[in-house]
Amino acid sequence: MSTDAGGDERLARAALTRIVEPGDELAGRLLRELGAVELWRRLRTLADSGEAVVPGVSAKRLGGYRLRAAAARPEQDLRAAAAGGGRFICPGDQEWPVQLDDLGDARPVGLWVRGRPHLRIWALRSVAVVGARACTAYGAHMAAALGSGLAELGWVVVSGAAFGVDGAAHRGALAAGGATIAVLACGVDTAYPRGHAEMIGRIAEQGLLIGELPPGAHPTPSRFILRNRVIAALTRGTVVVEAEYRSGSLATARSAQKLGRYTMGVPGPVTSGLSAGVHELLRGGGLLVTDAAEVAELVGDIGDLAPGRHGPVLPRDLLGPVAARVLEALPGHGAVDGRYVAREAGTTADEALARLYELHSLGFVERRSEGWQLVPRAPQITDTRRGDA
Amino acid sequence: MSTDAGGDERLARAALTRIVEPGDELAGRLLRELGAVELWRRLRTLADSGEAVVPGVSAKRLGGYRLRAAAARPEQDLRAAAAGGGRFICPGDQEWPVQLDDLGDARPVGLWVRGRPHLRIWALRSVAVVGARACTAYGAHMAAALGSGLAELGWVVVSGAAFGVDGAAHRGALAAGGATIAVLACGVDTAYPRGHAEMIGRIAEQGLLIGELPPGAHPTPSRFILRNRVIAALTRGTVVVEAEYRSGSLATARSAQKLGRYTMGVPGPVTSGLSAGVHELLRGGGLLVTDAAEVAELVGDIGDLAPGRHGPVLPRDLLGPVAARVLEALPGHGAVDGRYVAREAGTTADEALARLYELHSLGFVERRSEGWQLVPRAPQITDTRRGDA
Repeated sequence: MSTDAGGDERLARAALTRIVEPGDELAGRLLRELGAVELWRRLRTLADSGEAVVPGVSAKRLGGYRLRAAAARPEQDLRAAAAGGGRFICPGDQEWPVQLDDLGDARPVGLWVRGRPHLRIWALRSVAVVGARACTAYGAHMAAALGSGLAELGWVVVSGAAFGVDGAAHRGALAAGGATIAVLACGVDTAYPRGHAEMIGRIAEQGLLIGELPPGAHPTPSRFILRNRVIAALTRGTVVVEAEYRSGSLATARSAQKLGRYTMGVPGPVTSGLSAGVHELLRGGGLLVTDAAEVAELVGDIGDLAPGRHGPVLPRDLLGPVAARVLEALPGHGAVDGRYVAREAGTTADEALARLYELHSLGFVERRSEGWQLVPRAPQITDTRRGDA
Repeated sequence: MSTDAGGDERLARAALTRIVEPGDELAGRLLRELGAVELWRRLRTLADSGEAVVPGVSAKRLGGYRLRAAAARPEQDLRAAAAGGGRFICPGDQEWPVQLDDLGDARPVGLWVRGRPHLRIWALRSVAVVGARACTAYGAHMAAALGSGLAELGWVVVSGAAFGVDGAAHRGALAAGGATIAVLACGVDTAYPRGHAEMIGRIAEQGLLIGELPPGAHPTPSRFILRNRVIAALTRGTVVVEAEYRSGSLATARSAQKLGRYTMGVPGPVTSGLSAGVHELLRGGGLLVTDAAEVAELVGDIGDLAPGRHGPVLPRDLLGPVAARVLEALPGHGAVDGRYVAREAGTTADEALARLYELHSLGFVERRSEGWQLVPRAPQITDTRRGDA
């Protein structure tokens, strides 16, 4: 197993998240060709001397990079993140979700993260539920039902923390004592929308907040759109619950389709404009789903679930100390609830939950309606993780 | 072009419609092997003498055939039908829709028909709209919208005259001054359900009533189910508007699928049990449609629409006298409504309508939202009708 990215690499990437906008493929190409440390060095030179040492970039864009590079204070950002209980992860880190590499040069430079769970392991068994902000009562109902249903089936629910469908999906997962990840279009220390501050705080406790933007960064329309590609790439599939014709949720779904992820939609009345986008998606190759079990059946098909596809999947003796205690807290037979596990493992309920979903992704435990239980025979797992660093 | 089936053949088949139940594949095989005249002769012998001259039939079924054969009075049935303005058509007749041959030995023995239009020509451009009897307001709305929308696009709307979706589809077509065919599970002189007597009467005037059962025959549960295969086989495709899980409308859709016809469904709220069957269909390969234009786009694809696939398609000078007058009534440029055409052709509105949809199927005219107009260059058409007599 490779070690995490070194300090220079991490510092350079942290700086780059302040300089380049999410999804900037030109910067992605330079990063690939020069490496993060060298690109950051050249951008500092540009900022200091105005010397155009970065090949193939227009004067206009160079001007933008220059201004931002001059203002970048990556040590400060990393300290601010750590002070807020957050962290910054880079390609090559153990926690990096390698499926994001499918984005090519539009791969995030790094991810700012808040929350206990191991992002890479959680993302192994994750599904996105997205949809309209101004959804109907029907859309909110379906999103909440999918959120809780998927959580109960042991799936991690990923969404964008927006009003409407996103919020209902997160809340459904939270209410079921389940796992959820919010992918933000701003800094993970910034609760946006403000009206979801409490929910976002709860997700930081019980789940994960992630985003490409450094502390304090604010969302912009283009950041919302580009955030969607991360949701699509991170998950095994995307379910759209209500979307107007040509909406942002459909953009997520189309990204998912392009990336070879499952693309699903929940139908609704033809007479509702908020289902028109979903029906368009379903007519264009999206898969019709009506409940969480149907979603799980699609995204959980055996071939795709085989451990090691995206690695790392750890042998039992390589589990972290808390995960190992949580695993030992489970009885040999029968299911127990999360609170029991937390008590037995001597940890908090949120911590136990984080580890239980990790152990689920790794194939050690499973979630039934009655609670958590050991998988009869834990699978033989080998690390087939692709190197990145 | 072959001539219509001769008198003996017609008489024998009329008798057989009283003796064998719709979809009886054993009788269908005997009919294929012996011919209608010989089969009817043997069944009469059986009725007169009890002699089992029909090979491969169980004693029980033979008993049923014997009783019914003894009671069959085909001359009387044909006279009764004619007196009611009806007719009886057989395979080999010019009016026989040869696509019914796809049913193999379950092909109808013959069809009892009421109404002016030429069944075979109308059926060339027909789509079935079926669904739940106890539909919701949403289902009724969608069925009526599809019925009128398809009629306005020049398509013939086929359904089963039942309460709920069927009735709404017929009424939508009728209200749009359009073409509709009701396939009944009883004699075409029998209005069933009684509550739809007025609508069924209107269909006999403006469209077509057809069925496999002789005058006076009543519907039974199995006749309803077997009627569905005729709807499926007659049309280019079947749209299901609302259907409970495992319902009769789904049976029609599955027949259509098996016969290689387009199978479509209108989605609805997942929370509605009346959409559950449709969603099941859509998950199993049915095509999601949300309006008449989408249906027409599917069933009207060029390859399938090519004239002559199911023939007969007549050269202009072989049109019947009324159709020829209707065609001449259309101006060289621009669209006119059906009443104008009727007046110019010196006929009734219903008669004009019957011929206009025939001419549409044949490729001479087209229907726009403004009315009917000549197709700029009428296609060169050859008779590729398959022989059957």
